[in-house]
Amino acid sequence: MREANVGLIGLGTMGSALALNIAEKGFNLAVTTLHPDRVDEFLTGAGELAENLIGAKSAEEMVAALTPPRSLILLVPAGPAVDAIVETYAPLLSPGDTIIDAGNANFHNTRKRAEELAARGLNFVGMGVSGGEEGARNGPSIMVGGAKESYVPLRPVIEAIAAKFEGDPCADWLGPDGAGHFVKTVHNGIEYADMQMIAEVYGLLRDGEGAAPTDVGTLFESWNAGKLNSFLMEISAEILQANDDATGKPVVDVIMDKAGQKGTGRWTVIEALSLGQSASTIEAAVGARGWSADREARATGENLFPGDAGKCEFDRTDLADALLAARIIAYAQGFQVLTAASEEYEWGIDMARVAEIWRAGCIIRSALLDDISDAFRSDLPDGRLLFAPAFHDALTKGTDAMRRIVSTAILQGLPVPAFSAALAWFDSMRQARGTTNMVQAQRDFFGAHSFERLDQPGSHHGPWAQKNS
Amino acid sequence: MREANVGLIGLGTMGSALALNIAEKGFNLAVTTLHPDRVDEFLTGAGELAENLIGAKSAEEMVAALTPPRSLILLVPAGPAVDAIVETYAPLLSPGDTIIDAGNANFHNTRKRAEELAARGLNFVGMGVSGGEEGARNGPSIMVGGAKESYVPLRPVIEAIAAKFEGDPCADWLGPDGAGHFVKTVHNGIEYADMQMIAEVYGLLRDGEGAAPTDVGTLFESWNAGKLNSFLMEISAEILQANDDATGKPVVDVIMDKAGQKGTGRWTVIEALSLGQSASTIEAAVGARGWSADREARATGENLFPGDAGKCEFDRTDLADALLAARIIAYAQGFQVLTAASEEYEWGIDMARVAEIWRAGCIIRSALLDDISDAFRSDLPDGRLLFAPAFHDALTKGTDAMRRIVSTAILQGLPVPAFSAALAWFDSMRQARGTTNMVQAQRDFFGAHSFERLDQPGSHHGPWAQKNS
Repeated sequence: MREANVGLIGLGTMGSALALNIAEKGFNLAVTTLHPDRVDEFLTGAGELAENLIGAKSAEEMVAALTPPRSLILLVPAGPAVDAIVETYAPLLSPGDTIIDAGNANFHNTRKRAEELAARGLNFVGMGVSGGEEGARNGPSIMVGGAKESYVPLRPVIEAIAAKFEGDPCADWLGPDGAGHFVKTVHNGIEYADMQMIAEVYGLLRDGEGAAPTDVGTLFESWNAGKLNSFLMEISAEILQANDDATGKPVVDVIMDKAGQKGTGRWTVIEALSLGQSASTIEAAVGARGWSADREARATGENLFPGDAGKCEFDRTDLADALLAARIIAYAQGFQVLTAASEEYEWGIDMARVAEIWRAGCIIRSALLDDISDAFRSDLPDGRLLFAPAFHDALTKGTDAMRRIVSTAILQGLPVPAFSAALAWFDSMRQARGTTNMVQAQRDFFGAHSFERLDQPGSHHGPWAQKNS
Repeated sequence: MREANVGLIGLGTMGSALALNIAEKGFNLAVTTLHPDRVDEFLTGAGELAENLIGAKSAEEMVAALTPPRSLILLVPAGPAVDAIVETYAPLLSPGDTIIDAGNANFHNTRKRAEELAARGLNFVGMGVSGGEEGARNGPSIMVGGAKESYVPLRPVIEAIAAKFEGDPCADWLGPDGAGHFVKTVHNGIEYADMQMIAEVYGLLRDGEGAAPTDVGTLFESWNAGKLNSFLMEISAEILQANDDATGKPVVDVIMDKAGQKGTGRWTVIEALSLGQSASTIEAAVGARGWSADREARATGENLFPGDAGKCEFDRTDLADALLAARIIAYAQGFQVLTAASEEYEWGIDMARVAEIWRAGCIIRSALLDDISDAFRSDLPDGRLLFAPAFHDALTKGTDAMRRIVSTAILQGLPVPAFSAALAWFDSMRQARGTTNMVQAQRDFFGAHSFERLDQPGSHHGPWAQKNS
């Protein structure tokens, strides 16, 4: 029997694509799935790549097919399926073997599983894979977390299958236990914000100007040739110019305005809050998807509060500048969450490296990421991406443009939740003297929570304290 | 030895105040604390109310002092302290006895504790108490959750000590297990939003107009005499007109712009997200508190991106109308979270009753709550407070005013995160045809997530599907 370097469990969309990618790079790969019937079917469909594939019909066969130290990649739905497989395989594996969860797990679960398996002498790696089916097949961005030594045997495979940016593999080990899955979660959070911001620009042009989808598509195409270059800009341009097969109409005009979500955007916002941060642009995007499900209520709302939707015009350069600034702000919030988590969980994540491995393969790949990684390698004021010298001009110009865009939208009744959130955060973060002195005074008044003073140290109470007591 | 109707553990600020309130209403109350030395001190300080108080120096003494079925109120810090007390007392109690956690617990913990104690024949009640120290002493608003029968012996005490609104006690049993603590959490979430909105108006006047604190205070005082009447408006007016003892300056001018938080606001946002909702105005308030802690970064930000802070003027009527509409919107978001949670956990919460028991005693008590409870008792379009006929005019007029205020603020670079979030949600909820068709198209493009169509049922893929496969 031939021996495989790596095993892979789960032959759904992502698992199949990743398996073919690994086989194509010349590695011997043992594959199996929860439905062993599917194994032969997969091998047949793999064509000449089947040469590098070993079909395993049981856990025992899978473990026997692997060269120790074994690396076993799972691509199954997050949650109980992962636990079930871990329970099946753990007793069959030997100390030093590694189970790699390549799904979108919540990093808290990854941390727990890593701890449990470590006690049994096994490694557990949480690995984020971005790029959709196309990326998994031809080169995804791969974010690896877990015991550093477990990446050693895995590294040649991962680097071979990953996307390349100017020859550099978009894959790396980023930190222990949940670090890889956390970085993937925040990647997805930024993705949510970016998608929402593009949708808001589309909405301004559609509802404010009455622009046709193809015209918006052409505009986005031109933007994609400049500073706004990104995968999401590119596909948005393509989407807007695509026609529906059934009706011949622009396809966006037949698609229901109801967006699903699977949890990673929500997790980013929740973790941000738990870390005392706020990823408000991502929250706006998660919120917009949630509200989109309430189509009946929105129809009622439009009936009760009809807009007088006067036409308005948006300057194209303003829109582009605003979108770029909003994107930078979303990245800045995302990286701030990453920084806070890396400190909290002692992951020591290299932020520049994160930006680098996002430069190709993943959904948020964009021209911006090369600048972001440079920014993290240079001196960042207060360690914050928002203050990077490289983005100073784009933010100054872009937020000015955003003020014009957002104020016009607001006066016209056009919703721009993510743009509004971006501007509110930006303006809050450039206000040395904020307004929460009022909030803290209220807290002291009704709850005796005390406050700090500007002119002396210690904690103090207001003159109302005597009065209340 | 005298017997007590109720026991109370924890003689901190809130516990002491609640104990005196109970004793004053003529109930015999046994008290103890984790530091038994403090018991005698407390009895001495209680003056003639000590007649109704029994000091217990140990758990055994406490349990012996209570008439079965025993009701034991805990007012200790949320978390491990509650578990420790439960572990100490549970073995000493008899089936049918009730432990009441009157702190700000996370309702998930309350649910767990209720389940664990039920298995041991004991009731666990999660009870939200709002009103700060002053409320606890003279009449708080009390939100009770847990087994309904456990409220029977407790009810006379709770109703006696609660605030009254036109004679009606602001206290009630709202649902099983975590319902009471959840309602209290959302109460606090709304409180966060309301406080932040008031702080934003203060900021517009301070930074946009250069208004003196006392002038803003006088304005708030006049508002408090009208539709904006509320406890938070009242104390804000008082705060702004108070001078610092040490310097003679307005006290808000010496208070550091750094607001603390204890978790309930954050929990509201997290639970909203977990339920597929978004409490974006509350998130904005939580975020603003988080950012306020980053004072150094904000100073750096102001240096790097100085505003050209031209003066602007805000129409007083617009400000008042906008604040009222924003407050209604924050309540609408809060009640939507409550509605979703009540469905998810099968609590059957009576929303009208929640609004009623918030009319007096609690921090968010306001003139608005009487209208809100009426709205819930009448037919609400789609069951949503946002669509209540009673608020239609205030929302129409108020959101128009908010557009003028927010657009001016945004053009001037003044941060208004909560107002912006309120408007973004309102405008999203009155848009029958939203823009997430774009988001769903993107999801289908890169992840084959499929979309629904406007013109036919089922799930579909765009023309890019063939191309990608």
